[in-house]
Amino acid sequence: MARSTECVFCRIVSVEIPASVLYENEQGIAFLDVNPLSDGHILFVPRDHYERLCEMPGDLLSRFVTALPRLGRAVMAVTGTDGYNLLVNDGAVAGQVVPHVHFHLIPRRPVDGLGYRWNAGKYSEGRADELAAAYQDALHHL
Amino acid sequence: MARSTECVFCRIVSVEIPASVLYENEQGIAFLDVNPLSDGHILFVPRDHYERLCEMPGDLLSRFVTALPRLGRAVMAVTGTDGYNLLVNDGAVAGQVVPHVHFHLIPRRPVDGLGYRWNAGKYSEGRADELAAAYQDALHHL
Repeated sequence: MARSTECVFCRIVSVEIPASVLYENEQGIAFLDVNPLSDGHILFVPRDHYERLCEMPGDLLSRFVTALPRLGRAVMAVTGTDGYNLLVNDGAVAGQVVPHVHFHLIPRRPVDGLGYRWNAGKYSEGRADELAAAYQDALHHL
Repeated sequence: MARSTECVFCRIVSVEIPASVLYENEQGIAFLDVNPLSDGHILFVPRDHYERLCEMPGDLLSRFVTALPRLGRAVMAVTGTDGYNLLVNDGAVAGQVVPHVHFHLIPRRPVDGLGYRWNAGKYSEGRADELAAAYQDALHHL
């Protein structure tokens, strides 16, 4: 499998760096985030080194995510919560710090001050149609 | 396929409600969020009605997500951005409003005021070990 000796998550995968490992399967490994946003915050990481989600082969991602619903149920069972956020920051501009794909599962409690900053807008006349056409076109070529 | 006549996303899937549809495959449909957090914000939704990510069968989720890297590349190509957040709010406490699984892809630009509220902590002595044991145990039974 592709590994990077510089990458902290690759080094966790290869057991060079210790982590509180919770779960492993052929494609991925789940461990506690050492800087949790809330008690029980976990990371699920593919064993192979891909910097970005958008670069991952679809079939690898596909096998990787089969564990997600079960991890989600474990998050709620262990932390006694009713929900969680699944978050991937894909790219530095999106808040990605470690350049190895990682899925955050962040347990949520009422009034915990967490969550995504929600400041929704509306499209001006015509903009949604413009975007839809651009997406349809881009998706033919990507 | 399982549909709910009450569900706005099921009604988009069955074309009872119009939406700016960008992409469709056997498992899912992507369309513009009508209340965008940023220009080009899209939703990717499974055709089948599952309220929660944690309830989705792993194999269905698996087939559904194969399109995600391509959608991510489309988000960046169309919006001219270098990254995006992938977000699932799983449960009302986590901010889920429409009770039908949906993946947000939110294009990010520098200093856009978006992103997850990041207020990381540290575990007190022993807490990480306690949690790890509880997760390992839970994952045997879930």
